[in-house]
Amino acid sequence: MTTLGEKAVALAQDLIRCASVTPRDEGALQVLIEPLEKARFTCDRLTFSEEGTPDVDNLVARLGDGPPHLCFAGHTDVVPPGDKALWTHPPFAAEIADGVLYGRGASDMKGAIACFVTAALDYSKSKGREIEGTISLLITGDEEGPSINGTPKVLRWMEQKGLKPDHCIVGEPSNSTKLGEAIKIGRRGSLNGRLTVTGQQGHVAIPHLAANPIKGLVQALAKLYDTPLDYGSAHFSPSNLEVTSIDVGNPATNVIPASAEARFNIRFNDRQRPDGLHTLLQEEITQALAGMELSFKIDFEPPGQAFFTEPGPLDALLSEAVSEITGLTPTLSTDGGTSDARHIKDYCPVVEFGLTTETIHKADENVKISDLEQLTAIYRRFIERYFDNFAGAPDGR
Amino acid sequence: MTTLGEKAVALAQDLIRCASVTPRDEGALQVLIEPLEKARFTCDRLTFSEEGTPDVDNLVARLGDGPPHLCFAGHTDVVPPGDKALWTHPPFAAEIADGVLYGRGASDMKGAIACFVTAALDYSKSKGREIEGTISLLITGDEEGPSINGTPKVLRWMEQKGLKPDHCIVGEPSNSTKLGEAIKIGRRGSLNGRLTVTGQQGHVAIPHLAANPIKGLVQALAKLYDTPLDYGSAHFSPSNLEVTSIDVGNPATNVIPASAEARFNIRFNDRQRPDGLHTLLQEEITQALAGMELSFKIDFEPPGQAFFTEPGPLDALLSEAVSEITGLTPTLSTDGGTSDARHIKDYCPVVEFGLTTETIHKADENVKISDLEQLTAIYRRFIERYFDNFAGAPDGR
Repeated sequence: MTTLGEKAVALAQDLIRCASVTPRDEGALQVLIEPLEKARFTCDRLTFSEEGTPDVDNLVARLGDGPPHLCFAGHTDVVPPGDKALWTHPPFAAEIADGVLYGRGASDMKGAIACFVTAALDYSKSKGREIEGTISLLITGDEEGPSINGTPKVLRWMEQKGLKPDHCIVGEPSNSTKLGEAIKIGRRGSLNGRLTVTGQQGHVAIPHLAANPIKGLVQALAKLYDTPLDYGSAHFSPSNLEVTSIDVGNPATNVIPASAEARFNIRFNDRQRPDGLHTLLQEEITQALAGMELSFKIDFEPPGQAFFTEPGPLDALLSEAVSEITGLTPTLSTDGGTSDARHIKDYCPVVEFGLTTETIHKADENVKISDLEQLTAIYRRFIERYFDNFAGAPDGR
Repeated sequence: MTTLGEKAVALAQDLIRCASVTPRDEGALQVLIEPLEKARFTCDRLTFSEEGTPDVDNLVARLGDGPPHLCFAGHTDVVPPGDKALWTHPPFAAEIADGVLYGRGASDMKGAIACFVTAALDYSKSKGREIEGTISLLITGDEEGPSINGTPKVLRWMEQKGLKPDHCIVGEPSNSTKLGEAIKIGRRGSLNGRLTVTGQQGHVAIPHLAANPIKGLVQALAKLYDTPLDYGSAHFSPSNLEVTSIDVGNPATNVIPASAEARFNIRFNDRQRPDGLHTLLQEEITQALAGMELSFKIDFEPPGQAFFTEPGPLDALLSEAVSEITGLTPTLSTDGGTSDARHIKDYCPVVEFGLTTETIHKADENVKISDLEQLTAIYRRFIERYFDNFAGAPDGR
């Protein structure tokens, strides 16, 4: 007899063998559709387009009807493997060695999808394919890409079809090194900006006839570094600014350049809003450049929104399942990068729990077989508890 | 009868019409050799070569023998005209309009060469081609270039031939807007450097696992800006550092880069030596980066040396001539860029006096006809005074 863990590992291998480097699908969704349809899940394959962006395939699979509606969200697209020579196991071969499964997407996040699908199929089987409520999967191929033809459009489609979830769990890697360490109940927002300081070109030997924009840029950035954006909040670490590049591109060693540009990224917590950050930076830099014959402008890209789900029954049920399987009490974390939870938060409470971040986006990305087994068990137990707990609750909450 | 001024203007036009963009000669030296040889000057055309640098033609022309030996140094090469569409008079046409002569090199420094040659020819004629002492011209085609196959090698050649000058006047533009404003008795040295700060690459969302070299670079440069190198000296303005470029070249908005580089130029006065500046910067930046997990290195290019000639009879004689012709009392200045005087200072006292810097290196470079006339008169009077004053002086000083 095949164990649940073995089923999850085999499904993860099938997914990894599809070289679904964002935004390509390469058969990944079909790997999921087959067993789900066999288990009477309704599968809608949704291809979304928008001018200037690549077409993306997505999948909504669901079983049951009405509340409570638990949705699992994930992505089958992966980041490129990079230099294949750095991999000791080929990135799309899904080789297993010494209890470890290797491949791009093993942890981020084909492994977690395989675990949840296996758990959901087993749960529905235990209920004779008839569950009280709805269990659904929202699988996108556009999470590692611009995230335009993926989760946001799938959510709108679900709402229009009357399929808005009551709760959502995202399978992104939420633990740093150990399965069970952390459940994410929020992530900081992300704001990219470009600061351009303009002065007056001239000869280095006669600087009083010029105005060096690099001096202004250095003063402005030094001031931003000196001024903490905030000191964190109840659930979030402090907002943080990182300058990611400065580029002047002046090849002449005897010329003061006319302008200088810095690019930066701010990860902001629930104390900040993008508009407030715009104003703050504008003020700080105006002060820093006071008295210098320089002008500046800041161009901001559209922000990646933060998400935060106030601790409640969803994370509590998940924590219980995690503790029972791993023996660890997960922290409720809000660190790390952005995820599609920032789109989902507008529809229902959402938390994240998946594998570990240790090897994601790197060569030889991998996952322990024992982690896949444990995560399948955690998801299985969580699904059971979820429907036990919310069954009959008005609107499923 | 042709006036001295008219002769100088015609000679300047002939020089400008040779498109001698550094390191090309295009017949410029021959324009000088012809009238000089006719007036019994001995002319040596010297072509110097060095691997990795272009061959350069130079000229030593001399009349007379023994001390006192007055040398005039200049260059016939010019900087490129740049976008010719920005010129209202073609750069190598030497057109005259409204009392102004236009062309690349008009002020820097074909005009001044024409004035000195005209004055020297007139002086030698007044002496029946027999002068007591030596008058020489050191004309290079490598002042706007790397300055390797030009003045330094010509000076060594002159020394070997027993032709080391006792005093030298360089015809570089020494006035900013008005002929007679300033004689240069020194120029600051120039030191180019490259500061590279190295940290640890990482994701912007987890900055504690990375070390952002840009933060260190900004702190280091802010510290250098905050700490004056010196406050100037008796004859020099303060040493000055300009950052000329910062280049990181990181295209990814979510990645903290591994290293960041800044290039800078220091113009240093007689309080500083390149070695001392190396040590100072090393110390300042070590302090600025203390406690950050960053390393750095500074690469220095070979310095352009400073020159300084203690005020004495040479500038005094020149000042007298300037005052008598222009009515202005020239300041003894040490500002501005480098010149070949930095090489000449190792052989004899050297000062600079020529036209104005107002239009040099720009489109429509030009010189007033009246300035050419006055400069010819100044040089003529100075030559006369020089030989009157130093004649019979032991070793010509």
